[in-house]
Amino acid sequence: MSTTSARKPGRLFFANPGPTNIPDSVLRAMDRATVDFMGSDFLEVYDEAVAGLKRLLFTEGEVFVYTSSGHGAWEATLQNLFSPGDRILMPEAGYFSRTWGAMARQYGIEVEMPETDWRRGPEAARITERLVADKGHEIKAVCIVHNETSTGVALDLKTIREAIDAAGHPALFLVDTISSFGSFEFRMKEWGIDGVVGGSQKGLMLPAGLAFTAVSAKALEAHKRATITRFYFDWTKMMARRHRSFVGTVPVSPFYGLRESVRLIEAEGIEAVWHRHHRLAEATRRAVSIWSGNEGVSFYCADPKRRSDSVTAVKMPDGHDAEAVRAIAYDRFNVSLGGGLEPLGGKLFRIGHMGDLNEPMILGTLGVVEMSLRLAHVPHARGGVDAAIDYLATA
Amino acid sequence: MSTTSARKPGRLFFANPGPTNIPDSVLRAMDRATVDFMGSDFLEVYDEAVAGLKRLLFTEGEVFVYTSSGHGAWEATLQNLFSPGDRILMPEAGYFSRTWGAMARQYGIEVEMPETDWRRGPEAARITERLVADKGHEIKAVCIVHNETSTGVALDLKTIREAIDAAGHPALFLVDTISSFGSFEFRMKEWGIDGVVGGSQKGLMLPAGLAFTAVSAKALEAHKRATITRFYFDWTKMMARRHRSFVGTVPVSPFYGLRESVRLIEAEGIEAVWHRHHRLAEATRRAVSIWSGNEGVSFYCADPKRRSDSVTAVKMPDGHDAEAVRAIAYDRFNVSLGGGLEPLGGKLFRIGHMGDLNEPMILGTLGVVEMSLRLAHVPHARGGVDAAIDYLATA
Amino acid sequence: MSTTSARKPGRLFFANPGPTNIPDSVLRAMDRATVDFMGSDFLEVYDEAVAGLKRLLFTEGEVFVYTSSGHGAWEATLQNLFSPGDRILMPEAGYFSRTWGAMARQYGIEVEMPETDWRRGPEAARITERLVADKGHEIKAVCIVHNETSTGVALDLKTIREAIDAAGHPALFLVDTISSFGSFEFRMKEWGIDGVVGGSQKGLMLPAGLAFTAVSAKALEAHKRATITRFYFDWTKMMARRHRSFVGTVPVSPFYGLRESVRLIEAEGIEAVWHRHHRLAEATRRAVSIWSGNEGVSFYCADPKRRSDSVTAVKMPDGHDAEAVRAIAYDRFNVSLGGGLEPLGGKLFRIGHMGDLNEPMILGTLGVVEMSLRLAHVPHARGGVDAAIDYLATA
Amino acid sequence: MSTTSARKPGRLFFANPGPTNIPDSVLRAMDRATVDFMGSDFLEVYDEAVAGLKRLLFTEGEVFVYTSSGHGAWEATLQNLFSPGDRILMPEAGYFSRTWGAMARQYGIEVEMPETDWRRGPEAARITERLVADKGHEIKAVCIVHNETSTGVALDLKTIREAIDAAGHPALFLVDTISSFGSFEFRMKEWGIDGVVGGSQKGLMLPAGLAFTAVSAKALEAHKRATITRFYFDWTKMMARRHRSFVGTVPVSPFYGLRESVRLIEAEGIEAVWHRHHRLAEATRRAVSIWSGNEGVSFYCADPKRRSDSVTAVKMPDGHDAEAVRAIAYDRFNVSLGGGLEPLGGKLFRIGHMGDLNEPMILGTLGVVEMSLRLAHVPHARGGVDAAIDYLATA
Repeated sequence: MSTTSARKPGRLFFANPGPTNIPDSVLRAMDRATVDFMGSDFLEVYDEAVAGLKRLLFTEGEVFVYTSSGHGAWEATLQNLFSPGDRILMPEAGYFSRTWGAMARQYGIEVEMPETDWRRGPEAARITERLVADKGHEIKAVCIVHNETSTGVALDLKTIREAIDAAGHPALFLVDTISSFGSFEFRMKEWGIDGVVGGSQKGLMLPAGLAFTAVSAKALEAHKRATITRFYFDWTKMMARRHRSFVGTVPVSPFYGLRESVRLIEAEGIEAVWHRHHRLAEATRRAVSIWSGNEGVSFYCADPKRRSDSVTAVKMPDGHDAEAVRAIAYDRFNVSLGGGLEPLGGKLFRIGHMGDLNEPMILGTLGVVEMSLRLAHVPHARGGVDAAIDYLATA
Repeated sequence: MSTTSARKPGRLFFANPGPTNIPDSVLRAMDRATVDFMGSDFLEVYDEAVAGLKRLLFTEGEVFVYTSSGHGAWEATLQNLFSPGDRILMPEAGYFSRTWGAMARQYGIEVEMPETDWRRGPEAARITERLVADKGHEIKAVCIVHNETSTGVALDLKTIREAIDAAGHPALFLVDTISSFGSFEFRMKEWGIDGVVGGSQKGLMLPAGLAFTAVSAKALEAHKRATITRFYFDWTKMMARRHRSFVGTVPVSPFYGLRESVRLIEAEGIEAVWHRHHRLAEATRRAVSIWSGNEGVSFYCADPKRRSDSVTAVKMPDGHDAEAVRAIAYDRFNVSLGGGLEPLGGKLFRIGHMGDLNEPMILGTLGVVEMSLRLAHVPHARGGVDAAIDYLATA
Repeated sequence: MSTTSARKPGRLFFANPGPTNIPDSVLRAMDRATVDFMGSDFLEVYDEAVAGLKRLLFTEGEVFVYTSSGHGAWEATLQNLFSPGDRILMPEAGYFSRTWGAMARQYGIEVEMPETDWRRGPEAARITERLVADKGHEIKAVCIVHNETSTGVALDLKTIREAIDAAGHPALFLVDTISSFGSFEFRMKEWGIDGVVGGSQKGLMLPAGLAFTAVSAKALEAHKRATITRFYFDWTKMMARRHRSFVGTVPVSPFYGLRESVRLIEAEGIEAVWHRHHRLAEATRRAVSIWSGNEGVSFYCADPKRRSDSVTAVKMPDGHDAEAVRAIAYDRFNVSLGGGLEPLGGKLFRIGHMGDLNEPMILGTLGVVEMSLRLAHVPHARGGVDAAIDYLATA
Repeated sequence: MSTTSARKPGRLFFANPGPTNIPDSVLRAMDRATVDFMGSDFLEVYDEAVAGLKRLLFTEGEVFVYTSSGHGAWEATLQNLFSPGDRILMPEAGYFSRTWGAMARQYGIEVEMPETDWRRGPEAARITERLVADKGHEIKAVCIVHNETSTGVALDLKTIREAIDAAGHPALFLVDTISSFGSFEFRMKEWGIDGVVGGSQKGLMLPAGLAFTAVSAKALEAHKRATITRFYFDWTKMMARRHRSFVGTVPVSPFYGLRESVRLIEAEGIEAVWHRHHRLAEATRRAVSIWSGNEGVSFYCADPKRRSDSVTAVKMPDGHDAEAVRAIAYDRFNVSLGGGLEPLGGKLFRIGHMGDLNEPMILGTLGVVEMSLRLAHVPHARGGVDAAIDYLATA
């Protein structure tokens, strides 16, 4: 008989920046017996789910779905679009862009990864400069992480699109939207994006397990020339199948979940969803701003305009360990916060505010953060939750 | 195809004073196919669940379980213990004691229901006085609502036991624990209680649908003399069955839920559960105390020692409608508060803090109450949530 | 930590004649957090569910819903329609009609319960005779159990309606449809039925826990004169509430389930549901007919026209115990059959074929019954399942 | 609002040879909110689940788990064990071995794939011959599909182990157990298997979405020399993580399911599970044997000793289309059968009998197959289900 740890009463407040809160109706939609993934009943659900996903992406292009995590979608995208020796421009901005770059190098791609200040992210002007200098058009793609989950820095994709256009350069524009999609504005077609990497477990409010790449016609052309070895993630094989996705078994449960998730988002309205994320993120920022007085904690993201609407990274004052705050929040109050990744370990904690979230959830979370800062003896000014209440009651 | 109203994002914060928050593991335990209620597999679950219920009641007596709401358990208790013309003492203390008394009268019982100040509840000394005066022992029972859900006034049952004992009177001591059981201290045997009416949907953290009466040996003796007509709720019929409960079909789902609920409570520890309720209730009271400044809202319960650990009733200042506060909390912030019942309609709202609850849940709820008071232009001093945070961080 | 018995692999085949198989989508609809039963979101669900229930009953009258089992609905119906001393005609036909009659007597009603052959049930002509003889119209109601779950004998309600009409008698026509509703044809208004007692756990494919009475305008008039003491089940109190049902807490989960159940039945079509039950019942009868050769088992219901489409009772040859068959079916093959009730204990077993059932489910069940007969050394001719296959493949 | 197709009543009988029937308790275990995959609560569940998986595999080696389908585990195994130009011996035996071989070639591996009669599968003696001839030990691995899901031909792995040993050859012994693991005997360590590819959606009774490779120490040595490019599936990266599996996000839901699945299998006993599969497979074969008379359908697997205990492929007589049988079974009777894959399309249908299955489930399925054969006018002798009943009642 399996045993479980001592019970923490009440609901876990899950404020990691993904995976995220899953609506009960999505969980229930997935809690069902298996059906034949080639049967007509499932294909109807599948088609509805994929059509909905395209609507949320604002694309009419192809979307390839994988049984994988987001890292699998990264790999799929690289394998299907590039050949060994191809050059790409991928400005470093945090743990995730660095990892995606390392993956590309592993596959023999020449990755230009200009260093940036992680607290600010890359400048669009540098991208234009580099592309202008690339007279021979050796750079095949500009790869951008829309929202650096590790730092809470979000980039303006329209500006980057303009930066590429300004150089008159034909590079593909590829974007990782894993922690932004479904949380803040994203328009694939209008913004001229050629490849979008996304996953199920953040703004789509599903469990981890599905990931995808949405592609433009231009990207599909590039795919024809790509020679990196692939099989499991091969788009050509996928396009030959009825599902136009997957090599091998097609999982059925997640598509019942995805259909429901799309239904919920569209019932609320995608723009209303974006607005809600902004509002709850702003409430979080109001709290952090107050706490930041008194030489205490501060925003990791140094550029106020780039503070993400899906995750806020809170930097610790010197000599204080973010893990102590996280441990108190979790062990005593059943609130799960994100930690700092790799070089940022212990230096910050992250408050995820994405997915199926509302005002009392964010206030409960902020209340526990404030208590945990106090109990961990981390310098901060009190009144953060009050500021959030002020904002939410009047905005 | 069924339709549903516009979706409110995020979780509903359910702060009605019952039914209450149900742990996911309890819901999942009940989400199962039917089995034969006479089969050995179910009987094992049934016996475990009922044994657990007795442990939580601190009784070794009989417990009769019904497919009914709490009102059904009231009816069962009256039908099985009394005869038309019997006299009982049932001090009025709010909507629920008044309704139980009306039910008793309907069944031909002579109900003495001394009026009390609903904001304070009955005095134990009056009970002693009345029993002392009852030289002929015509009063068959003293019936007490442990926690008046409608007013947030909780009584000290030990004191009332002592009040009965002080009179040397043989009346049965019957208690409605519907909104207290599982939330604050209750010890049936030690406190000399002869009949306990309870339901599934509050501290037991189950859906509505099951109710029960636990009885002492003395009550079972009284049952033998009781002549009120009954069938569906007849204890004698129940005792003749394997389940020693129910007349007719035995529902199976709730017992899978009850077994899990007992497991959760005992994993946390029943005394820890009581302590948690006290702590979260006290946090609520700290917030209400702050709001109460400025000639604004106030505690409905005028006696600080009787403020309930499972529900706090907040009285509106004259000229303000509690329903406006409730509507804002629900419509804009997805927090469900309890309203005033019958004569108290519009005059107060109630914050339930019972069942599967923790710090971020209560802080989120209080945050929304504070915002709703502000948006409804109800006089109150700000800073209630801050006070709750202060308390919870240090208590 | 709770323990469970040794696991039986695969799905339990639940062939008790109620409670019955619950569709997964109904279980999932009920697996949800509590909401305020007075809130608008729930009221929308409630109203849809009740409206659907009325459509399935083919009535426009009032339906009173209770948190209770079917026995509770019996009690409610008696309490709300009669006064002590009232006379009713309730032909005995099995365990359930006998019990309902006993309940009526308990409430002071004069019950005329003509004995009948349980293997055939009452004759309509006897009802006419008795009513014709009742010149003074002392008989207030004719009470009929549509489908005797204990015997598998189903009555033709239209014939009984005609029998009452033939006598020109004003008695109410009350029907227990607990094990017929949702399984075979029932039309309340067209058939002139004044009161219908039903429950959730059979043809409605829900867990046990809800029961109801649907009433005609004529019955509501009778209600005004009824004086049996009641409170929990009082219709007058119910009509004064928004829900027009329930005294006390309204359970929310079952209405999410009922709404889904109605949706499923109407998606299939109520007449298609009846047809399906007839077809699967007939397959069962074909199997029993074969087994009945060889002086073995036989139909308990001696009148072929009255064999129920929701349950088939199989009579054992002398000297054989039905419980041995049931034990083998359950312990070795995970199929749950119904046993004989009270005087019929051991003398028959019952195959329920109601609710969410299809061909492979009935064939699997019949296959196990045939194996269990063999293993229990009960005389029977082989080939029952083959006969069922023959029928189902061609009918 | 999403719509769904016309409802088929009753439970779907899912007799595809994988994905397969998932026990309700496994579905419920997965129906839960997200938790932090780095948190201690999840790690406890994770460790229990992985330890259980190892026990079921009878290995003490490393197991690498992926978010992927079985094809992903194939790819992972090839990428982590081989270098371009390596030679492997992979006897063709059906659709799946052919596909795995094609994948290996895609990655630059020299694949020797001796043709075999798909109705019989490869001969162990041929393997010995080839290995003996490989004096220079160029063959790095012998790759075997334990159970060809596409044909219902199962191989005896002990014999193949002996065939390798007989040649005194150091090749790795790699096995795809996707459709055998959990269904029939498998002992990794005892049988000297170096790499085992498995998935979640068959004998483990989970939804599709997880796959894994279990490896011997010898395989881990080979991994160090393998140079095929990889990242998402890289074992070295995995071993550096706490989970010793996954690159990127770790999915949490499947591990709650896996823990429960292991619990169910061990509660029944793994040997009892194997025995049950054999018994239900044999019942299926008895039915097919009867149907095979009359120049009708026949076993696709021509070698009676190799007929699989998890799937039976039924070959159509010339001029008859298996898809017609499948369509009738599904559309009219709600039974989902497997079809023929690629070259076998229309030529056979497959009855899966794996996972959470029992006697009434298999009898219901066989009953529907027999009806569907009749309705599709496919030559067959009647009485197949009777034969299965005969066997199951006495074996």
